[in-house]
Amino acid sequence: MNTFGQKIKVTVFGQSHATAIGVVVDGLEANFPIDEQKLQSFVDRRAPGKNAFSTSRKEADKVKIVSGLYNGKTCGAPICAIIENGDQHSKDYSELEAKMRPSHADYPANVKFDGNFDVRGGGQFSGRLTAPICVAGAIIMQMLEQKGVYIGAHILSIGEIEDDRFDNMCNSCDYIKTASDKDFPVLNDKKGEMMKEKILEAKNNLDSVGGSIECMITGLEAGIGEPMFDGLENVIAHSVFAIPAVKGIEFGAGFEVSKRYGSQNNDEYTYDENGRVRTLSNNAGGICAGMSTSMPINFDVCIKPTPSIARCQKTVNIKTGKNDVLEIKGRHDPCIVQRAVPCIEAAAAIAIAQFLL
Amino acid sequence: MNTFGQKIKVTVFGQSHATAIGVVVDGLEANFPIDEQKLQSFVDRRAPGKNAFSTSRKEADKVKIVSGLYNGKTCGAPICAIIENGDQHSKDYSELEAKMRPSHADYPANVKFDGNFDVRGGGQFSGRLTAPICVAGAIIMQMLEQKGVYIGAHILSIGEIEDDRFDNMCNSCDYIKTASDKDFPVLNDKKGEMMKEKILEAKNNLDSVGGSIECMITGLEAGIGEPMFDGLENVIAHSVFAIPAVKGIEFGAGFEVSKRYGSQNNDEYTYDENGRVRTLSNNAGGICAGMSTSMPINFDVCIKPTPSIARCQKTVNIKTGKNDVLEIKGRHDPCIVQRAVPCIEAAAAIAIAQFLL
Amino acid sequence: MNTFGQKIKVTVFGQSHATAIGVVVDGLEANFPIDEQKLQSFVDRRAPGKNAFSTSRKEADKVKIVSGLYNGKTCGAPICAIIENGDQHSKDYSELEAKMRPSHADYPANVKFDGNFDVRGGGQFSGRLTAPICVAGAIIMQMLEQKGVYIGAHILSIGEIEDDRFDNMCNSCDYIKTASDKDFPVLNDKKGEMMKEKILEAKNNLDSVGGSIECMITGLEAGIGEPMFDGLENVIAHSVFAIPAVKGIEFGAGFEVSKRYGSQNNDEYTYDENGRVRTLSNNAGGICAGMSTSMPINFDVCIKPTPSIARCQKTVNIKTGKNDVLEIKGRHDPCIVQRAVPCIEAAAAIAIAQFLL
Amino acid sequence: MNTFGQKIKVTVFGQSHATAIGVVVDGLEANFPIDEQKLQSFVDRRAPGKNAFSTSRKEADKVKIVSGLYNGKTCGAPICAIIENGDQHSKDYSELEAKMRPSHADYPANVKFDGNFDVRGGGQFSGRLTAPICVAGAIIMQMLEQKGVYIGAHILSIGEIEDDRFDNMCNSCDYIKTASDKDFPVLNDKKGEMMKEKILEAKNNLDSVGGSIECMITGLEAGIGEPMFDGLENVIAHSVFAIPAVKGIEFGAGFEVSKRYGSQNNDEYTYDENGRVRTLSNNAGGICAGMSTSMPINFDVCIKPTPSIARCQKTVNIKTGKNDVLEIKGRHDPCIVQRAVPCIEAAAAIAIAQFLL
Repeated sequence: MNTFGQKIKVTVFGQSHATAIGVVVDGLEANFPIDEQKLQSFVDRRAPGKNAFSTSRKEADKVKIVSGLYNGKTCGAPICAIIENGDQHSKDYSELEAKMRPSHADYPANVKFDGNFDVRGGGQFSGRLTAPICVAGAIIMQMLEQKGVYIGAHILSIGEIEDDRFDNMCNSCDYIKTASDKDFPVLNDKKGEMMKEKILEAKNNLDSVGGSIECMITGLEAGIGEPMFDGLENVIAHSVFAIPAVKGIEFGAGFEVSKRYGSQNNDEYTYDENGRVRTLSNNAGGICAGMSTSMPINFDVCIKPTPSIARCQKTVNIKTGKNDVLEIKGRHDPCIVQRAVPCIEAAAAIAIAQFLL
Repeated sequence: MNTFGQKIKVTVFGQSHATAIGVVVDGLEANFPIDEQKLQSFVDRRAPGKNAFSTSRKEADKVKIVSGLYNGKTCGAPICAIIENGDQHSKDYSELEAKMRPSHADYPANVKFDGNFDVRGGGQFSGRLTAPICVAGAIIMQMLEQKGVYIGAHILSIGEIEDDRFDNMCNSCDYIKTASDKDFPVLNDKKGEMMKEKILEAKNNLDSVGGSIECMITGLEAGIGEPMFDGLENVIAHSVFAIPAVKGIEFGAGFEVSKRYGSQNNDEYTYDENGRVRTLSNNAGGICAGMSTSMPINFDVCIKPTPSIARCQKTVNIKTGKNDVLEIKGRHDPCIVQRAVPCIEAAAAIAIAQFLL
Repeated sequence: MNTFGQKIKVTVFGQSHATAIGVVVDGLEANFPIDEQKLQSFVDRRAPGKNAFSTSRKEADKVKIVSGLYNGKTCGAPICAIIENGDQHSKDYSELEAKMRPSHADYPANVKFDGNFDVRGGGQFSGRLTAPICVAGAIIMQMLEQKGVYIGAHILSIGEIEDDRFDNMCNSCDYIKTASDKDFPVLNDKKGEMMKEKILEAKNNLDSVGGSIECMITGLEAGIGEPMFDGLENVIAHSVFAIPAVKGIEFGAGFEVSKRYGSQNNDEYTYDENGRVRTLSNNAGGICAGMSTSMPINFDVCIKPTPSIARCQKTVNIKTGKNDVLEIKGRHDPCIVQRAVPCIEAAAAIAIAQFLL
Repeated sequence: MNTFGQKIKVTVFGQSHATAIGVVVDGLEANFPIDEQKLQSFVDRRAPGKNAFSTSRKEADKVKIVSGLYNGKTCGAPICAIIENGDQHSKDYSELEAKMRPSHADYPANVKFDGNFDVRGGGQFSGRLTAPICVAGAIIMQMLEQKGVYIGAHILSIGEIEDDRFDNMCNSCDYIKTASDKDFPVLNDKKGEMMKEKILEAKNNLDSVGGSIECMITGLEAGIGEPMFDGLENVIAHSVFAIPAVKGIEFGAGFEVSKRYGSQNNDEYTYDENGRVRTLSNNAGGICAGMSTSMPINFDVCIKPTPSIARCQKTVNIKTGKNDVLEIKGRHDPCIVQRAVPCIEAAAAIAIAQFLL
């Protein structure tokens, strides 16, 4: 459901057009100072309306902490943070209640919720609900960073255009933040320009385009992760699929391993100059048998193209019980990959918190 | 840890060389007849020693149900099933306690468990622990099949050699079992022969080879799956990463979506001749927003090459604190993909059980 | 922590002097109309300031539903409800940060939360946090009542003065609501007057007084409850101890059974005139082996006297590290038993929801 | 269901007449030596057949550790321990399948499990299933004791006859073990003799008798316990009600608090000669607001008289659908309180483990 985690529990609530959306984070240690400005800046990274590459809808997304702080520090009570939904236009939603948008939650949600699915703006399935995930992730990342654990992500590809990859042997915390702070979070800005063109091309064609994201986590000591069902891969994957549009995840060399020989894929061990154990390669993405190896954790996710496109699409009309056609109106993201980058960082942080906080 | 699930709890125990390995399955409805012969046959699909493509070690893997049945039917008590470990050779494990096998659990496990990791045969991280998962999966699949839900998988690739794909528009329960019953579970037997050659080539080179598996689930009605953190993708991924060597999972078109336009990737809806809602394509792998769309659920996983290879490898010696080399002795699987096929089916069944049983 | 339940998850947040307190209720079925007026009325039952028997502090406790409704009905999204904390006087809390109030959370909370416990008004340990529990309980009770399950409670005793007991053989839903709707919820109003005198006596002596509450649940069919760790008694007890000041719980004849013979305590079965199974007595409080027997569920809890009393008390001063004395100022409840009655009903509802919703 | 705990997961399986009963304990730290002899001795404390005060049925109850140890120490893998059920007489259970034993699990279990309840020896509801709980408790207690936390219990009453109470101000670990090691675990042996007479009297009358148990836990530092739903009281109560026949639990002064004034019940703080915070009384049973105060934890439970009595009882016959009478044959415990003492210690240990291990 909408709660994740055993040790650090993250509970998300709200719908796109409800009074507010928000999150409760429980289980955090007390006496930790929360930098609210830094928190807001993180959440702003996913905000729309910043440029031509995302929806022109403006959302202030001002985070308001309702509980859990005392003297500016965590006090052991759960943190509840709320983002109020601005005044939404009172639209006519009758068409969307009848005609199911292809590749959206609409049809399965209508079946599941017995016809009373909140269709306004996508309801609880709106990408807007990733804002509370970012809030939770931003709080947790402040704590993780104090323990020396850093999380960064960047756009790995848009359509066929690929960014450079992270150097997965590099444990530097600054390095993995390189892309995070950019408006368009790529490592190679030239590739970034090409990606932007690709997005505008899709937009001009009343279409959308998919992509992928690479995420890396540094600073985890060896031996973090529980056996079998609660390994790092299990828990990260569980968390990351909460971000809508994610359709796949692969760790380290990922699907490439299916084509390899063991002698190519094994990561041999060595003591480094400081007597610390490292591997000579990092095909495992820092995880063996669900546990950290001491190398950076590294995974990719793929993001499907936004299903909301302005083209005419075939669909069913559940009011008439007949086949129908639909043109989705309004402003949409021609690509959500760039906005999903902080969401993936946040989902990773929520997962890692289960092991470290 | 070693328990998975909220509604149906699966708890796995044992180490490769402990007295036994086994599983407890709790939360099953009562009064359901268990076909123990069918259960044993399913578990036998992962057994080694059947041919030249897997390890020559023979394991009887006789499943013994210790509790949970009355009059041959479930009685509401948890089912506990045990597989006794045969007499293991009393080997000298001192080398393995010192030299960490690359890409195995050894090093992180030693750190995590404070030096008392059961190294014999891989301990709790042995692939042998997938046998209890198969037991749990086989029990659950008997129940799911009675509800019309069928699960099948096949080898999708070994090295560069690819099998045909499932027709992901086909909801037939017989169809998805085609490969499952074969000794070498592929759809296209010619490709299967090429794969076997690939495996033998790796074996002859003292090497191993990776691959991938496709799994499909039919018969799920629309609207199954919980929002956000407990969608089908979250829960299936969580469960499937419990199978050692899985390094990635993708649903439907998977990573391919990153290269697509929305107009190519969206699955348009239609009423079929029986008035049921279907989609005209199934790029979503049967899942939108974490919920089933009524189409077959479809996912791929990649399996890394077995890390146990007979070649000399560099590693660290944690007893001497120095770099060292290691030649792993004994009999190993040159490829575990074919043996992992029923394990993936079982892990999928355990995940689906959380929503349906 | 602050989340309870597997099927229906109730997450409480807030501190007495935070911006707000509130609750998230997740897992509720969709399409159920919520009567917000009825919800507010339930919450008002625990409100203070209604008469001389509770604190004179007025709290509006207006419940504001932030998410989870669409067209006035549940829509499958989690319900989040908030109660804003009124403008709290900016008091000087330095004395309470130093001197630990006896039998309050202060001392253990200071140890647990590393010195940053929100001491204002009791922080997260304030009795005020039972308001969100009442909100959750009230929502759930509306759903339970539609399934024929009713929950009622009354003051069983204040000091030595005892109310009549419920007739635990009576399955009538009206009957168990008799006391709930009264301002001073007792079955026998004469006893109620004596109790009020007792409370005023304590108040006049700058003291407080304890009491007990009886709760009954009707309409549960036989066989509800899970074996061993998740029986009705386990789960109800777990939930009810969330209400501060509860120090004990007993089901049916309770501690009285310790003095009985089996022949006195056993509840013999019979078919009633409608062919339904009933018992001839209900010493079990409607629960055998953790499961409902079809008879009313019945339990008592004891409530300790409010620890906040105006008398001078010995305590430790953690700033000086020396023994000290403390006079607690401000307005306090001389007795909280009457205000706890709806809280116990709510906690029972939250427990029962795990089995029925 | 049959699994308890988040951090330390205890999963019990088996039925009275299944092949075996047992338990899986997961989440234990590695490298801890387990004294198997001490474990067996603990389990032997609940064994029947030792004297005239319990059933004459002999059970060897030999604990066999199946997994989880390596070099005699925990190795991070779950511990699975099994107790084989001896050869049970092949009895005719048709009468018990038809006639529901009063105050047993039979009737609700038949409804719940759709008619396929394992009636043999009480099935999964047999008191025999407390043996695996004792195994788990004994393992956990070995670990807790290393951390300075000790748990002891004794018979507090049988019928009207009361033992002395523990001195709940005394934190000595030896003291609370006084009664545990006795064959008939009481503090005052004279009272113990009177209790034995009471039990024999009940036995001679073909009857049974109830009682109560006091349990104490020493060595917990202040501040242990989570707020609201996961306080010490919530979790201990949840665990303890897993012991069949427990009908109530009260902490510290318990139900007595309902008759008290705050000035009588509050526990004032003081620094002791070593500068440690203590309270001048311990009416709270060592718990305030769900957290430990640093004083001994102290609670009582009541145990109902064994429902199996040889007298003729009225009941329903679910095969004929008519009222009927039943005489329960075989050997029964005239009193189970003495055998329940280690079970209560074990249940307390399982609860405390969630906070400390």
